[in-house]
Amino acid sequence: MFEIFFLVLFSLSKRLLLFLNFVWALKRKKRCLSLNEETKKPRNGKKIIAQKKNNNIELLIMPFKTKLTELCGIEHPIVQGGMHYVGYPSLAAQVSNAGGLGIITALTIAQPPRGAEALRDAIRECRRLTDKPFGVNITLLPVGVPPDYEGIVRVIIEEGVKIVETAGRSPAAVIKPLKKAGIIVIHKCVAIRHALSAAKAGADMISMDGFDCGGHPGEEDVGNWVLLAKAGSVLRQHSIPFIASGGCATGTQLAAALSLGAEGMNMGTRFMATREAPIHANIKKALVEADERSTTHIFRTVNNTERVYKNAQAMKVREIESEHPGDFSKIYHLVKGELYRKSFQETGDTENSVWSCGQSIGLIDDVKSCKELITDIVNEAENTIRGRLSSMLVHRSRY
Amino acid sequence: MFEIFFLVLFSLSKRLLLFLNFVWALKRKKRCLSLNEETKKPRNGKKIIAQKKNNNIELLIMPFKTKLTELCGIEHPIVQGGMHYVGYPSLAAQVSNAGGLGIITALTIAQPPRGAEALRDAIRECRRLTDKPFGVNITLLPVGVPPDYEGIVRVIIEEGVKIVETAGRSPAAVIKPLKKAGIIVIHKCVAIRHALSAAKAGADMISMDGFDCGGHPGEEDVGNWVLLAKAGSVLRQHSIPFIASGGCATGTQLAAALSLGAEGMNMGTRFMATREAPIHANIKKALVEADERSTTHIFRTVNNTERVYKNAQAMKVREIESEHPGDFSKIYHLVKGELYRKSFQETGDTENSVWSCGQSIGLIDDVKSCKELITDIVNEAENTIRGRLSSMLVHRSRY
Repeated sequence: MFEIFFLVLFSLSKRLLLFLNFVWALKRKKRCLSLNEETKKPRNGKKIIAQKKNNNIELLIMPFKTKLTELCGIEHPIVQGGMHYVGYPSLAAQVSNAGGLGIITALTIAQPPRGAEALRDAIRECRRLTDKPFGVNITLLPVGVPPDYEGIVRVIIEEGVKIVETAGRSPAAVIKPLKKAGIIVIHKCVAIRHALSAAKAGADMISMDGFDCGGHPGEEDVGNWVLLAKAGSVLRQHSIPFIASGGCATGTQLAAALSLGAEGMNMGTRFMATREAPIHANIKKALVEADERSTTHIFRTVNNTERVYKNAQAMKVREIESEHPGDFSKIYHLVKGELYRKSFQETGDTENSVWSCGQSIGLIDDVKSCKELITDIVNEAENTIRGRLSSMLVHRSRY
Repeated sequence: MFEIFFLVLFSLSKRLLLFLNFVWALKRKKRCLSLNEETKKPRNGKKIIAQKKNNNIELLIMPFKTKLTELCGIEHPIVQGGMHYVGYPSLAAQVSNAGGLGIITALTIAQPPRGAEALRDAIRECRRLTDKPFGVNITLLPVGVPPDYEGIVRVIIEEGVKIVETAGRSPAAVIKPLKKAGIIVIHKCVAIRHALSAAKAGADMISMDGFDCGGHPGEEDVGNWVLLAKAGSVLRQHSIPFIASGGCATGTQLAAALSLGAEGMNMGTRFMATREAPIHANIKKALVEADERSTTHIFRTVNNTERVYKNAQAMKVREIESEHPGDFSKIYHLVKGELYRKSFQETGDTENSVWSCGQSIGLIDDVKSCKELITDIVNEAENTIRGRLSSMLVHRSRY
């Protein structure tokens, strides 16, 4: 009797062992596939989330999860930074719909006569166009007529905007009420010490903007190649998350930015060359035709350096500045905002105004939709990491 | 009889199956470990090669295999670029011994009275100090007394040097005899079009040097952040391999450079802050204490821009240049090479000469041995790829 029982148990135990072994092997195989660095089909590795939208189930593909995507609740670690005469709700909403973070440029919208109330309309318009997170940019720069910053902040809070990008001068005064209202603040700045003080003032994340950027790179001329590496050591020591900004346009740069310690990438100029960018087609054409040498600096002599498209007007401004350094009155007629607006919104004349763009202008080869742009960048970054970088590492399995 | 045979077979087949299953599972487990992107012990993944040296077996750890390591037969994708008054055989040999590519600076060595024959001695000295590959740098810049380039090239060929780094003006005339002698040529330049023409002239690899670099960044001021991304698309389209140069000092930058399409990284300034660098300790101290804003440009008005340490002498040169643009005779007494040499080799005075350094000066926190430096950079790059980047990718196993 005992022997029969033992035999049955022995026989069963083997079957049990066989079964467990098989399950374990299957599980291992699954893990192997998911961790396979050299996979030929990297897209299979993406996180797919089902999301209800307009009563349809939409599948989102999210290969990257970073502090930026988590903080802002967005799908891809890509921000469309504030841009004068470009950052209207129509662009911001489409960037957000494509899974990035679209941003409305407050100073472009909150103009006389309606001022901050025009921004209220823009925020509402953006909300009609997207149900995804978007933000508002508040740039704090010395301009002719001081903008109604108080009104802008009030409208942002009243309209329930969740994310604000501040930029330029010290944002402490603006950050205070925004943080009180529970708004996420990303501060864009050009120096490590400014990043530290913005974080101290309450900024949740830094957008680190180097010499290569369009618009205002500051007066210290530290390139992103070094600035981002430095941020990757200093800001991370202080547990301050940051994203790369300035001169960004490609998926290889997204992979590089993440390597350097960033949590994502901010792009301005690259988003100007999208189908949805609400600017004249001639400007987009100029962006595609230009190369990396097609920008220059103006306003250095008035301590407010700006990187702009290298056209006849900009060269004239440089010439006058070298003759009359620091005398803004001598160049005002060439640089006033109204010329900028007209070029972008009316005439498409690329030559008779000064307009901001980054060195990323040399990395733009086409005009595509925001969705295509973001998808291509994210795919390129993912392929760079899973493919190129992994293939350069010598694996244990090779010896 | 038949039933007994069947039972035995059935019983055995199960055991066989169990055994095969187990072997397969073990094999899978091994592969999983070798491919595990999020492994906590990345060093286990390195390639270890046994090499005979001085009758001892030496174990080399090589985590990266790129076109640079393959082309030059070196262990790590790191080059120590040519540096005036720094690139002596004692440094080059130690960089090579540490697994990088050490480079002797010909123009520093081939000085009167012995000229190119002094370079011959230096090459022989370097060979005594290392049995690993090293190179010689030939910089083609406009200098007061034209160097004996012909003699330098002849000595390099006669001494059997395997690798030459050319830099500066068009290298075609120098490349021709070098390639005829079967020497590998890496050309350092600051513009995509120069890279294309150097490759056409026979250069095997490009060292792409941006605005951020020490020494001569050219007059176009394109930062490495954009220049490397551009090279990653244009040069790779033409199958021209390149390495990143200028402002390089960290392992995160090595990972970023590889992301952008480079095959490795060239460092100058960072190697000045090594124990083996044959320069005065005060200079090394200045490198450690400086930050990323501690450099400036001189010689812009004479169309030969140079990034140097931002000291009293450099600011004096800038001042004179702004008053007398283009007049080299007005600044010559402040910038002559003899002052540079004295600061580095005799006095250690950081202030009374102009001396080259890159923005990477802001990324230097310590003076260590070449071996420690290269090992740390390679480990950091590997950890960045296997750890940080992989953890940001959403794996299939997570859903």
